[in-house]
Amino acid sequence: MSIEFTNDSPGVSDVPGFRVGAAGCDIRNKGLDRLDLTLVVADHPCAAAGVFTTNDVKAAPVRFCQQVLAVSAEKIRGIVGNSGNANACTAAQGDADAVAMAKLAAAAVGAPSDAFLVCSTGRIGELLPMAKVAEGIKVSASRLSRDAAEGVRSANAILTSDTRPKSVTARFVWEGKTVTIAGIAKGAGMIEPNMATMLAFVCTDAAASPAELKTALKSASDQSFNCVSVDGDMSTNDTVLLLASGVSGVSVGAASAPSGLRTLFQEALDKVCFALAEKIVGDGEKITKVVSVEIEGARTRADAEKIARAIGNSLLVKSSWYGEDPNWGRLADAAGYARTGLEEAKLDIYYDDIPAVLGGKPLPENKPQWKQVVKAARFAVRLKLNLGDAKFRLLAADLTDGYVNYNKSE
Amino acid sequence: MSIEFTNDSPGVSDVPGFRVGAAGCDIRNKGLDRLDLTLVVADHPCAAAGVFTTNDVKAAPVRFCQQVLAVSAEKIRGIVGNSGNANACTAAQGDADAVAMAKLAAAAVGAPSDAFLVCSTGRIGELLPMAKVAEGIKVSASRLSRDAAEGVRSANAILTSDTRPKSVTARFVWEGKTVTIAGIAKGAGMIEPNMATMLAFVCTDAAASPAELKTALKSASDQSFNCVSVDGDMSTNDTVLLLASGVSGVSVGAASAPSGLRTLFQEALDKVCFALAEKIVGDGEKITKVVSVEIEGARTRADAEKIARAIGNSLLVKSSWYGEDPNWGRLADAAGYARTGLEEAKLDIYYDDIPAVLGGKPLPENKPQWKQVVKAARFAVRLKLNLGDAKFRLLAADLTDGYVNYNKSE
Repeated sequence: MSIEFTNDSPGVSDVPGFRVGAAGCDIRNKGLDRLDLTLVVADHPCAAAGVFTTNDVKAAPVRFCQQVLAVSAEKIRGIVGNSGNANACTAAQGDADAVAMAKLAAAAVGAPSDAFLVCSTGRIGELLPMAKVAEGIKVSASRLSRDAAEGVRSANAILTSDTRPKSVTARFVWEGKTVTIAGIAKGAGMIEPNMATMLAFVCTDAAASPAELKTALKSASDQSFNCVSVDGDMSTNDTVLLLASGVSGVSVGAASAPSGLRTLFQEALDKVCFALAEKIVGDGEKITKVVSVEIEGARTRADAEKIARAIGNSLLVKSSWYGEDPNWGRLADAAGYARTGLEEAKLDIYYDDIPAVLGGKPLPENKPQWKQVVKAARFAVRLKLNLGDAKFRLLAADLTDGYVNYNKSE
Repeated sequence: MSIEFTNDSPGVSDVPGFRVGAAGCDIRNKGLDRLDLTLVVADHPCAAAGVFTTNDVKAAPVRFCQQVLAVSAEKIRGIVGNSGNANACTAAQGDADAVAMAKLAAAAVGAPSDAFLVCSTGRIGELLPMAKVAEGIKVSASRLSRDAAEGVRSANAILTSDTRPKSVTARFVWEGKTVTIAGIAKGAGMIEPNMATMLAFVCTDAAASPAELKTALKSASDQSFNCVSVDGDMSTNDTVLLLASGVSGVSVGAASAPSGLRTLFQEALDKVCFALAEKIVGDGEKITKVVSVEIEGARTRADAEKIARAIGNSLLVKSSWYGEDPNWGRLADAAGYARTGLEEAKLDIYYDDIPAVLGGKPLPENKPQWKQVVKAARFAVRLKLNLGDAKFRLLAADLTDGYVNYNKSE
């Protein structure tokens, strides 16, 4: 009953019951070579669930998906996604365009008009070029298949400033039947959880109700997409969607399934979501380091999370990571301004396993060893607060001059 | 009854009843040329008040000042301040060193041993070189004067990565007597209120009780030092001190003074604090723009402040300011993730007085005009939420590749 995990898989085309197609329709006016539209289509109605940005300013497709899932989460036939334009801050026309995208996609694959979810990512505040989008949907529909190559094209079509596609697949066998969960994601900038400028589409051939999927997806997201930060900016469009075709014949829902199966499904889903989240941080805009910020011994998980985010979003901390400067003073400072009631005299700070501070007392004699740790592309900073048992882990990234220059103008 | 304001004044040496002296004692091992220690000395015991960082991790001198002010705020004789070393995260030895600095300063000027306040700023996590500090105190004491030149040296001695000294003086006349308020400050990095890596020493020859000074200083700080942000990092050492010699013979305290006088004093103090705070932002590490983030029409001031800080601390927003890119979508995004219950359909966004969004609807036809606004070294972004009457203004700065490279290593 082990989970077989494939990194950089073809993505959702791996999942029985789904086909994908992608097209380049020049949404950003940068030529047709760039893939920027994709369809993920289920052969039959699916149960579906979503987790969305908690930003007060939600893009039109986010509002649209929330409405669709509120009324027809048990009969979803697919997702239409585009990059290059976020359809955010686009007022009433944006809402109309999201509805139109869903209808065009449904019509192109012969599905009911209320059966499609819509995701957009890219520039904020501009209207979608709907004629191009319509053409992209037509071309994508004509290419629908379960070919690995089309899966990879689909994973590419949702990217913006990402440098590489992000896709993983997990499989496990239950009573002779194989269950598959696969996902694709995009990230890059505006990445702080709850969620990020991130989209993730996860499909499975397990069977479950929308409510069961929602619970499983929420749990997986809280341990993955909501524990990463590139730049602390939460977007208007963040969306994770989970569609379940049920064609494996394995029902993993809470009510009907044995607890061992439920656990296995959750583990596989967690693994898929965490791997996608990790890829998002690792491909953050112009980053050079991925740093695991591990807070232990807090009074509550909320305290630990506050400290982890204060550290992971501190410009001074992130700049020092870039410079490979083991500046633990900035870690202590950021931990302190999270204002959780940290006690300096109890604070331990480690780089990987090398203590820099114990009980509030610096250990400068270890400096040569910390300096080695921070040279790695991936390392951990660990703060033990020695106040309780709660902990939180945030995957964060450094801040580079490249990020600033890249984001000076869009 | 108007206030006469002098920008870039000699600073606290302007205030009757106070003398200053400064020295270079090579605290950072970078040579004796750099001034890094100063004494501000009152001829007679003063009433004093302080406002301090709310960071859980407070530097030794912050804890020391809080203790001193708790027991002897009515008989303070002066301040000893140093740059180059923050005496933060230095455990028990750091506390002992802060006490020793106060005693050395008191002894050098013949004051009681519990009459001095201590401020340090600079690198975190290293012990003060106390022999050098002692020498610096000795030299500073030998130079005590009311000369303008020494005032300027004193303002220079507290700087770290600042590029210029920060000092202002305000004066007003009440019933034929002149009251003076003057202050010096340092800022540069780790600047976000409540407070910043900032020190400010403000002296006046007005008379008031410690409690009255505390009320006045808290009010002035909330409208100045607590409304600026360079990088969102609150320091371990932030301190604003106010000393009142009383030698003007004008008593401005709440109990005894006419309300017109109290108002005048508060206005002058507000002006001094705001001017110093503005200088701190304007001299933020490697910044090129100072942006006034003005949030209006919020339900509460706290909501308006949350939105202003989300915008003023957003890496994407700050990067776009640097690039002179009027990216209002990033403003809307950051405003939304402050999660105050903003309603997109009511949101207006302006660059200075040019609307970019009205009622949630973009006005791209005004783009040429916004593009002009953001080319200036100082401009305003204004968000009208149209939900209530509350407002908040934050002075923020852009984020540059220069900042990142400067802070890569310390």
